[in-house]
Amino acid sequence: MSERISNEFYKSKVMSADEAAQFINHGDKIGMSGFTGAGYPKALPTAIANKANELHGRGEDFQIDLFTGASTAPDCDGVLAEASAVRYRTPYASDPVMRKKINAGEIKYQDIHLSHLGQQVEEGFFGNLDVAVVEAVRIDEAGNIIPSSAVGNNVEYLNSARKIIIEVNEWQSLDLEGMHDIYKIQDLPNRTPIPINHAGDRIGTPYIPVDQNKVVAVVKTNAADRNAPFKPTDEISEKIAGHFLDLLEGEVQAGRLTYDGYVMQSGVGNVPNAVMAGLLDSKFENIQAYTEVIQDGMLDLIDSGKMTVASATSFALSPEYAEKMNTEAKRYREHIVLRPQQISNHPEVIRRTGLIASNGMIGCDIYGNVNSTNVAGSRIMNGIGGSGDFTRNAFLSTFISPSTAKDGDISAIVPFATHIDHTEHDTMVVITEYGYADLRGLAPRDRVPKLIAVAHPDYRPLLEEYYERACSEGHFLHTPHDLKTAFDFHINLAEKGSMKG
Amino acid sequence: MSERISNEFYKSKVMSADEAAQFINHGDKIGMSGFTGAGYPKALPTAIANKANELHGRGEDFQIDLFTGASTAPDCDGVLAEASAVRYRTPYASDPVMRKKINAGEIKYQDIHLSHLGQQVEEGFFGNLDVAVVEAVRIDEAGNIIPSSAVGNNVEYLNSARKIIIEVNEWQSLDLEGMHDIYKIQDLPNRTPIPINHAGDRIGTPYIPVDQNKVVAVVKTNAADRNAPFKPTDEISEKIAGHFLDLLEGEVQAGRLTYDGYVMQSGVGNVPNAVMAGLLDSKFENIQAYTEVIQDGMLDLIDSGKMTVASATSFALSPEYAEKMNTEAKRYREHIVLRPQQISNHPEVIRRTGLIASNGMIGCDIYGNVNSTNVAGSRIMNGIGGSGDFTRNAFLSTFISPSTAKDGDISAIVPFATHIDHTEHDTMVVITEYGYADLRGLAPRDRVPKLIAVAHPDYRPLLEEYYERACSEGHFLHTPHDLKTAFDFHINLAEKGSMKG
Repeated sequence: MSERISNEFYKSKVMSADEAAQFINHGDKIGMSGFTGAGYPKALPTAIANKANELHGRGEDFQIDLFTGASTAPDCDGVLAEASAVRYRTPYASDPVMRKKINAGEIKYQDIHLSHLGQQVEEGFFGNLDVAVVEAVRIDEAGNIIPSSAVGNNVEYLNSARKIIIEVNEWQSLDLEGMHDIYKIQDLPNRTPIPINHAGDRIGTPYIPVDQNKVVAVVKTNAADRNAPFKPTDEISEKIAGHFLDLLEGEVQAGRLTYDGYVMQSGVGNVPNAVMAGLLDSKFENIQAYTEVIQDGMLDLIDSGKMTVASATSFALSPEYAEKMNTEAKRYREHIVLRPQQISNHPEVIRRTGLIASNGMIGCDIYGNVNSTNVAGSRIMNGIGGSGDFTRNAFLSTFISPSTAKDGDISAIVPFATHIDHTEHDTMVVITEYGYADLRGLAPRDRVPKLIAVAHPDYRPLLEEYYERACSEGHFLHTPHDLKTAFDFHINLAEKGSMKG
Repeated sequence: MSERISNEFYKSKVMSADEAAQFINHGDKIGMSGFTGAGYPKALPTAIANKANELHGRGEDFQIDLFTGASTAPDCDGVLAEASAVRYRTPYASDPVMRKKINAGEIKYQDIHLSHLGQQVEEGFFGNLDVAVVEAVRIDEAGNIIPSSAVGNNVEYLNSARKIIIEVNEWQSLDLEGMHDIYKIQDLPNRTPIPINHAGDRIGTPYIPVDQNKVVAVVKTNAADRNAPFKPTDEISEKIAGHFLDLLEGEVQAGRLTYDGYVMQSGVGNVPNAVMAGLLDSKFENIQAYTEVIQDGMLDLIDSGKMTVASATSFALSPEYAEKMNTEAKRYREHIVLRPQQISNHPEVIRRTGLIASNGMIGCDIYGNVNSTNVAGSRIMNGIGGSGDFTRNAFLSTFISPSTAKDGDISAIVPFATHIDHTEHDTMVVITEYGYADLRGLAPRDRVPKLIAVAHPDYRPLLEEYYERACSEGHFLHTPHDLKTAFDFHINLAEKGSMKG
């Protein structure tokens, strides 16, 4: 472990997590590392939760505002939510306990584009950040931080916070050093272009410089990231993946893509896994990823020689693949770049790379307005994440979903979306197991038959019925709607248990 | 006039507009110049409309798909719509006749972010462009085009179209030459950064190079742009402008803005005019604009020395100010840069400049989801224009609207927006005559009181009543809604003539 803290000053600050938690006060705004279950602090959250429980037991107030890269894990979001230690949470919330408390009205949650939060924190839109708690692989001689399996908003939080706590996690491979590319966007008004032209371009340092005067504690840990087991793929996911690959083939036929020019962005899940499995046997070569998270399938594509480079801000690996990463990081770092999320998700670079985006959705309406976040308009699922950053700026963007959920009681395609995260101006292609609806170049009424064709057959007559009603006398016909029955699907679901009524 | 066509080949192509219209066929996709009433072709649209009328009289089909920069004028959009000569229109539609036919279902309209269309045309998302019809001030010896009072998508249309028709308009000042900065973004996958760091940076040429082999006609015109008379400001606009200026002062107090660091983006209208009048007497100096259109108020700011430079893609001037521009373009071109709209509205440059955006809206819901485009979910007003390009990427963004319309029968703040163009993730500040609602850093439920406070007093109890109902038993409390009554305001308006019911 001694090799992991090479700087004398930091060594002098080593203490237990409980001791470090003394620096966290009621009302503090805390910026933590962590993105999609990787690179979050492993010890401080529990220590803060214990402190909260103790103070609450004495009748004292103790709650923090919690900022991260994106989702973390039960031993971070989960323990803090369980202890009622969080007042406000941003920018992403996928933990079950945290989500339950948000939807019960006990925790305030703000859902922010992942590329936006870093700048907003630095500009003080939330007030001053009190403490940054950041996981590291190692601290070098000069006191620089080598981040671990996620970069997230570490740079912005370390810069903005008054106090800094570093967790050095022995579980993380020392060979991750050299995989990161840390670049700080200049402060306004003196910004210059971000000099990334291709996914693999390196423009920064392998470490994060830190103002040592702000470091109040260093905590040693040895704990694994939350790495969810790989789910075996299912028939519906494979069908959706097949349609996605057909779409790519169509782009090649149209002369807009070449077999060695595909730049991938991909959300996490079964369909992306199936897409990547499909790519292994495809004609595509020299694939690049400019995306948020490195998934199992990307390591397979790298191993097979199909993918030359993957740029992201974190890992989202199964335990098996996380183990492989820890063993072979030295090899993988030739093909993987981990960046701050403000760079991995930056509109400037996304537009420049000409990537093809693919993100999951809860559903969309018959005109292509997409709901990514809320059920019934009110109940947060996870958050918008980077889907807006990538969709708005991609060369070509897709939204994917099975056509139904809950044993057929919920249709992905609805008359009117109860929450809209991506507007009709942004949605290009919607894919279900029934095919892909290519909405490019189509006015709203011409999108309707395309979207109904990828709805589940059980729902097609109901959607057609709504559209006919919306087009009937007295209505305006640019984007026909019948507001009196627009939410009937959702009201049926609430009252009768199925959108079918 | 002879001085305006300096190239022999182009001289040989001079013909009447009626003769040039022979190159336009049924089913053609036509890319025209023109943005916000400036720089649109003055003669071809009428000639095409006449051809349509003649063919329709003989029972023949004749309709085109019409692509422009943004809005044009009665003698362009208007005559073509009147003659039923348009099948499909994009990306903006503010002409009354065109709008009426779109809402009647006679013309298909697709509402696209202004920064997106050029690339989508070049990539063939709409099929091949048949003809580009572009207004010019002059054609130089080498056959390059000096554009007129708007650049819009001229570069992309001239590159993509199989045939080119140039209108040379003697009404436009020859001194506009030198004001334009024409830069072509590289084709994928070989893009590099757009090297604009500050609003006034020039990175291209003052002309558009053209493939002469594609030029089929040159038409001489002498006709004014559609320049709408300046509307005298009203009390409500002045109040809104006052709140906007208060917001700016607040940013200075918070240390996020300096009196010589304001970079402005502004939509068109009475409130922006009042804001610019207010800036004349403010402490702000060396103001820069990185925006879509140059308005009267910006010329006043330039004349007063308050504004150093304004970058845009077109003019939207009153007749009086258009006359001044025509007389004094030589002076103004030291302070004005006209760019392709893909550059004026590019996310990359917008984020880099750190501008403060201000755009009008139809209204928004109690959580900050903004409707910019459709009334009652169905009836298009104009289009999203560049509001998405600027809002999503601005350092700070605002939406402005009077709190009511139609003598108080319509409230700008509603329980649920019937069309969403900007999501809760994007909306920072909403301004009415009752103040500004600063939503930054606030979870959805904390935005509600802020937004109700800027609603018209008549609607506040109704909005509170809805919110209480949405928070009542059985509902989820992240973004509380009661879907059964979410559109009651709009149903009341349709059935009883007022959102009040």
